[in-house]
Amino acid sequence: MPNQADRYEALRLRLIDAAERTISESGLAALKARALARAAGCSVGTIYNVFEHLDELILCVGSRTLAMLDGALAGVQSASRRRSAEAAADDLVRLALAYLEFAAAHIVRWRALFEHRMSEARPLPEWYVQQQHALFAQAERPLLLLLPELDTDARRILARTLFSAVHGVVALGLEEKLVSLPLSDLRNQLAATVRAIAAGRAELRSIDGVGGRTDRQRR
Amino acid sequence: MPNQADRYEALRLRLIDAAERTISESGLAALKARALARAAGCSVGTIYNVFEHLDELILCVGSRTLAMLDGALAGVQSASRRRSAEAAADDLVRLALAYLEFAAAHIVRWRALFEHRMSEARPLPEWYVQQQHALFAQAERPLLLLLPELDTDARRILARTLFSAVHGVVALGLEEKLVSLPLSDLRNQLAATVRAIAAGRAELRSIDGVGGRTDRQRR
Repeated sequence: MPNQADRYEALRLRLIDAAERTISESGLAALKARALARAAGCSVGTIYNVFEHLDELILCVGSRTLAMLDGALAGVQSASRRRSAEAAADDLVRLALAYLEFAAAHIVRWRALFEHRMSEARPLPEWYVQQQHALFAQAERPLLLLLPELDTDARRILARTLFSAVHGVVALGLEEKLVSLPLSDLRNQLAATVRAIAAGRAELRSIDGVGGRTDRQRR
Repeated sequence: MPNQADRYEALRLRLIDAAERTISESGLAALKARALARAAGCSVGTIYNVFEHLDELILCVGSRTLAMLDGALAGVQSASRRRSAEAAADDLVRLALAYLEFAAAHIVRWRALFEHRMSEARPLPEWYVQQQHALFAQAERPLLLLLPELDTDARRILARTLFSAVHGVVALGLEEKLVSLPLSDLRNQLAATVRAIAAGRAELRSIDGVGGRTDRQRR
């Protein structure tokens, strides 16, 4: 016979499963406590015994999405073993294209990752922030080959900046309203942009770590 | 004594003004028909005599935001009259930084531009799409200097892609949860990314117009 801790854990999983179904099929706005409780076979009040607030439940689903994305990106790196700037550029392009494929294939739950804001200005929990960082870190290995002279901090920040640039092209590209392109053209645009950044990498050397300055005088 | 057309137009403006105040102070989610009607001195039903749906009213506010942004970007180009690739790269960096400044200074209404989705899968009206295109077109002039060999279609699409990349760095950079950086560091990251793209521009030559292919065999 299951003890109370088991029952609690089973209910917790049922709630996350139900929230995941709703978020991945209908998006964040469709998530309602009443429907969740019905799907998981508990009362609305019980949800708040298991999760401190709905944000926590949403982050548990976000964490699953991040894990899926992490797996999709981890699969694409370094078909070759070459340790050259070209191999690094190829890896960055592969990562960017894998990000686009993931977003296109899971667009509803992927959007929910970015639409969600914590209520009442609560901070994101540390475990979730760490999971995000692990995702960005996938771009750090090719950056180490591409710009070996950057220090660890600068490389970490640059990885996030490149992720953001790729995210922007993917996000606005998949919003038909802004940039209406067939997926194959979007792939070309994204790959060319990442290749240009890699080819122009000398310009990225001026990036310092957090709090640093690039007091380079230009022209 | 004002005639009916004048009264209608005055009410229309009061409604847009009221919606603009709400959206720029509290964001899209705070917009409620009842509060709008109260602020404009009309009934809720009257709103739907003036605007076909709330989306139309939201787009009128979006149009004002786009016009502000357009003005902010138009002010920064071509301090110099040099017609060189370096001058073009400088202009692209200036545009990107002006976009960042605008977003940071008007973050609530700027976010609303991207959060808004038309309900019931209505298409965006053509006048709004044209206004967006005019905004992207600001990047086309420097691109003409940077990559004179691109045809008009390819340049137009590339301008939107670069806008998207810049938007991504700005949007995730201003979301503290993802990339928590002081604004000065975010400026450096953004400028370095745009300079890298400009320096690696040879990679962008492979971009074709809509429906085109870049069947370039790489390595």
